[in-house]
Amino acid sequence: MAERDRIARYFAPLAAGEAGSFHLTDDAAVLAPPAGQSLIITTDSVIESIHVLAQATPQQFAQKLMRRNLSDLAAMGATPWRYTLNLHTPFGLADEWFAAFAATLHSEQRLFNLTLIGGDSTSGGDAIHTTMTCIGLVEGAPLRRSGATQGDDLYVSGTLGDAAYALTLLQQNAPIDDALAARYHCPSPRLELGNMLRGVATSAIDISDGLVADIGQICSASTCAARIETSALPLSSHLKNAALSTAQKIQFALSGGDDYELCFTAPTSMAKAIATLSETLQLPLTRIGEITQGHGVEVMDENGATIRLATHGFEHG
Amino acid sequence: MAERDRIARYFAPLAAGEAGSFHLTDDAAVLAPPAGQSLIITTDSVIESIHVLAQATPQQFAQKLMRRNLSDLAAMGATPWRYTLNLHTPFGLADEWFAAFAATLHSEQRLFNLTLIGGDSTSGGDAIHTTMTCIGLVEGAPLRRSGATQGDDLYVSGTLGDAAYALTLLQQNAPIDDALAARYHCPSPRLELGNMLRGVATSAIDISDGLVADIGQICSASTCAARIETSALPLSSHLKNAALSTAQKIQFALSGGDDYELCFTAPTSMAKAIATLSETLQLPLTRIGEITQGHGVEVMDENGATIRLATHGFEHG
Repeated sequence: MAERDRIARYFAPLAAGEAGSFHLTDDAAVLAPPAGQSLIITTDSVIESIHVLAQATPQQFAQKLMRRNLSDLAAMGATPWRYTLNLHTPFGLADEWFAAFAATLHSEQRLFNLTLIGGDSTSGGDAIHTTMTCIGLVEGAPLRRSGATQGDDLYVSGTLGDAAYALTLLQQNAPIDDALAARYHCPSPRLELGNMLRGVATSAIDISDGLVADIGQICSASTCAARIETSALPLSSHLKNAALSTAQKIQFALSGGDDYELCFTAPTSMAKAIATLSETLQLPLTRIGEITQGHGVEVMDENGATIRLATHGFEHG
Repeated sequence: MAERDRIARYFAPLAAGEAGSFHLTDDAAVLAPPAGQSLIITTDSVIESIHVLAQATPQQFAQKLMRRNLSDLAAMGATPWRYTLNLHTPFGLADEWFAAFAATLHSEQRLFNLTLIGGDSTSGGDAIHTTMTCIGLVEGAPLRRSGATQGDDLYVSGTLGDAAYALTLLQQNAPIDDALAARYHCPSPRLELGNMLRGVATSAIDISDGLVADIGQICSASTCAARIETSALPLSSHLKNAALSTAQKIQFALSGGDDYELCFTAPTSMAKAIATLSETLQLPLTRIGEITQGHGVEVMDENGATIRLATHGFEHG
């Protein structure tokens, strides 16, 4: 199918919700953002064999792409609104791939309430490259990485280390529970949480590179240090029951990437509000340490001794 | 150099003009668009061996990337404002490449008055992939592809076929004049023209796929047909003096991509205004035909006979 026909058939229906997308038939899209709101812009790629496995399904591409981007909006407390898409795919990739990719994007955009407005596609090369640029909206001040202060509590949502543990099993072709595999393939952007943390949290970041690395970003932006208590790290039953040493489990939780949970700081006075929020969202929000003076991230074992990490998280690629 | 250091060193300075970019250190950028203006959003990639030659210089990557995107803004009559950047580069690409790429982007963004606000970078793969998502502003109605009506004159800016002719020479390692090579490597987005055509032109598009193919887009969006007079096609002295048959020259002008000139339609009553505009901008604006009833693009030779084309332009990749 020619590029133009493919766009008309598979992608134009995803742009039906925004008249200014012109059904993807003009040079650019025209947007009139709602008055009084700020635009929150983020962009992330998902590349075969890097952010997804080699031979990942079109569904996995679409979900990872959408959710990686939405996680950044969540970390700012923004509401998803519009997005653009770039597809670079090998010559001759089957129409069925595009059909399935677009169908998943369609269900994702209904789930998260955002609309395609434009894009670009190219055939060539060996690996599938997908890029999304997301526009979110926020009324009032967004969450930032830079507001943490000494004495703040340090929290994370959900459980940690699951995506990295899942990836290890997937790479070994080891048996894996579907729910655990989904932690890698289909992360949950914490959009509701991010939205409700505005006015509660003093700083926030999404955990993409690994807990210690990402807290390091908060410390760097906020000019402070952090202390993590490993005994407090929330582990899923998958990781708790895994045939791994405690040290290995802690390592996954501290350094594993791709969890896309939110890490945030808040004054101790907000503890009760955060507990209520956790109940409302039916999402664990666990205090894992605190913000201290100085710089860097200190990790304490169950006896209060500082431990060193083999690696401090990873950067993609 | 680690990814984070590279961003801080080479790319953060490009974001200095927008406080909401947070020096590229937060999860997303925060923008407050000027009141009363629409946002014009476009995105395009430049991939090694597809949109630029294999072994293209970092300068050529940066210029082609910026200008391909700005040409889409020009076609809507928009003013450049902000952009995001995605870089996928092979492992171990030298720091000098990033330094030179960023330095060129910096001079490009000063020239065209826009500012980097965020991005994403990944190492891996064989070919360099670069993607830009551009945000422009427009006050009032943007130019569209869809407003052409029967009897309108059909115009193009500049000269046609140069980029495709230059590419042919470059691919053959044939001797080539610098100014001609620049028509391929460093196109001129017609931003001033696009801006001044609002209220004058009834439709516009930038010529990226080839004149006939792109006029076909206007016809399709406007539900009309077009007639091109080959005798009127504006050729540069490079193409006029080339050792090619007249038919080959006409073929370059009709089907060559990457010229990034504007093609637009206007009622005959605007002829004088367009002549004045041409003088003001010191840019040829040539009437090459007219909008007719029906559908499709008809090409007439100097005797008024319809001619058939070997190809009707090309799609990238």
